[in-house]
Amino acid sequence: MNPGTDPDSDRVRRPNGGRSSNVTMRDVAELADVSIATVSLVVNNKKRERIGEETRARVLEAVAELGYRPNALAQSLVSGQSPFIGMVADAIASLPFAGQILRGAQEEAWRNGYVLLVADTDHAPDITAEAIKMMIDHQAVGVLFSTWYHREVQAPPLLASLPAVFVNCIPQTPEAVSVVPDEVQGGRLATDMLLDRGHTRVAFINSTEEAPSTVGRLAGYRKALAARGIAFDPDLVLPIFPERVDGFQEAGYEAGNELLARTERPTAVFCYNDRVAMGLYEAVKEHGLTIPGDMAVIGFDDQEVIAAHLRPTLTTIALPHYEIGARSVRALLNRVEGAERGHVQRVDCPAVVRTSI
Amino acid sequence: MNPGTDPDSDRVRRPNGGRSSNVTMRDVAELADVSIATVSLVVNNKKRERIGEETRARVLEAVAELGYRPNALAQSLVSGQSPFIGMVADAIASLPFAGQILRGAQEEAWRNGYVLLVADTDHAPDITAEAIKMMIDHQAVGVLFSTWYHREVQAPPLLASLPAVFVNCIPQTPEAVSVVPDEVQGGRLATDMLLDRGHTRVAFINSTEEAPSTVGRLAGYRKALAARGIAFDPDLVLPIFPERVDGFQEAGYEAGNELLARTERPTAVFCYNDRVAMGLYEAVKEHGLTIPGDMAVIGFDDQEVIAAHLRPTLTTIALPHYEIGARSVRALLNRVEGAERGHVQRVDCPAVVRTSI
Repeated sequence: MNPGTDPDSDRVRRPNGGRSSNVTMRDVAELADVSIATVSLVVNNKKRERIGEETRARVLEAVAELGYRPNALAQSLVSGQSPFIGMVADAIASLPFAGQILRGAQEEAWRNGYVLLVADTDHAPDITAEAIKMMIDHQAVGVLFSTWYHREVQAPPLLASLPAVFVNCIPQTPEAVSVVPDEVQGGRLATDMLLDRGHTRVAFINSTEEAPSTVGRLAGYRKALAARGIAFDPDLVLPIFPERVDGFQEAGYEAGNELLARTERPTAVFCYNDRVAMGLYEAVKEHGLTIPGDMAVIGFDDQEVIAAHLRPTLTTIALPHYEIGARSVRALLNRVEGAERGHVQRVDCPAVVRTSI
Repeated sequence: MNPGTDPDSDRVRRPNGGRSSNVTMRDVAELADVSIATVSLVVNNKKRERIGEETRARVLEAVAELGYRPNALAQSLVSGQSPFIGMVADAIASLPFAGQILRGAQEEAWRNGYVLLVADTDHAPDITAEAIKMMIDHQAVGVLFSTWYHREVQAPPLLASLPAVFVNCIPQTPEAVSVVPDEVQGGRLATDMLLDRGHTRVAFINSTEEAPSTVGRLAGYRKALAARGIAFDPDLVLPIFPERVDGFQEAGYEAGNELLARTERPTAVFCYNDRVAMGLYEAVKEHGLTIPGDMAVIGFDDQEVIAAHLRPTLTTIALPHYEIGARSVRALLNRVEGAERGHVQRVDCPAVVRTSI
């Protein structure tokens, strides 16, 4: 057995060489018979003129005796500099790719000497308020307020008390800083890729929520058509209601069947997301048709577990979640320094080329 | 515009009524002309006998004047009680359901008055060490070391310096506390559900990694057969190599084709995970057969985005990730109090019944 990994010695071994792990500044103060402030000043090497050499020596002796390790909490308290950036997310746990926002934010925070304090609120307003209070209590320099899909939000009132950046969402106040995916650019790119391959009858299976994604991707689709002089045909935009059929796959399957029953079929379909494309695949296959030969399909999201593993693999537009997380931290740190004015930063959505178009 | 959500007033408004947000104990000490320790003692209402009434009044006046808000950092420093539990995870960002471990851990931590400090290490040893150091520096009472799939691990050496619980993984030291899914029970449950429906030729498409999941689910499968007096037939266990074909779906598709080419077909298949089942579905459909009529299929994981949305919807065994996260925090707090001896806690995997068997 490797003694270095023996967890039963947890509470008795420490990097300082064998002393208790719970030594505090107070313990040092008591042993040295000085105030906690004096310990703090000695340990942090501040205001040397205020402390006599004899006192100083007594404190350092107690530090050595107890194996006290000055900690980041104490140091941030003394310096008045918080090491924390808060991140309040509504659903890290329930969406595959939202975790990439977390990773991008974390790595950018670390690069700048900050630690992320993360809270997953599961959409509950009371937990959101609790989480923001916790971050204020720990003197986070600011908070990233993140939603798992791109949408408009009501900013929680507590957020007004510290610098904030809205991640993947846009609050209704024009002075806010938001970092979101560029839905229009993404929708245009998806459509352009189909038009580039010679398709002229391109359908768009679009969701019906009032959200930046549905509005933006449709605007991108129309721009791409307009740029080629192709008239917009409203019959080629199929609205879906995923909540009525228990999922996007189910909605994509139904919309696919509707498209395939038409006498004049489109030859290519842009799907609102990869789950819609997954359902469309089923419909196409049940009709004995092939992708992309009989119908080219492009998705949106580059959703893990699905996009790369459908048959055929799905060409799609990726949501730049890692980049959104990283840029949000940079925007927050600029805002903390007073350098960032309210605006919406839109991040490009790149194409992921596979075999379905 | 709602002034309560005006982020441009971030740095000038505070719950304390309009003072600067960066007032520290040091500022109070300077204004009151006392030591930081004295401020700390007054603010935290400690050792009243040591502080004269006049000094006390002066400190409280400075607190009011500056709008100082005693913060959680200061309080945990004074009390010697850390409010943090660290969580070091190797890939929150890259797996759909690993987020549920985070949510379970967070909610249990909050119920006990702790805050989770989360770090996603992306499997990098240097980031793991950095994250654990960060947690030691912030005096986390202990660390949850979590992996995204159930496996054996080498405990990072730094973890020996504070209480730890291994989440979803088992280190090679027998004294460690681990909380993991019960793979044997899950494998047995899946097989029993097929046998209950009258199937006697039940295949098992199993992965080939050396992992508790492959070994445990196979053991469960064999137990279920043995309990009914059905002889174990090694030909019915199909090994797959997902890394060779770029994914579990692809491997499930190949194994499905192999099964379907046999003269004596099994009537039911237990799949190592839902992604394997997704690939098997494709093979079954391409053969013009139906699920569950021609072949019953059960998966494992209850993987979001897939399980509930295949056609037909997939009956499967869920990984109890939320419960694992919550129990890990309870085990860690017990360990901090010295009450938890080394052991492996196995959490039951429940069935999710849909329409594929």
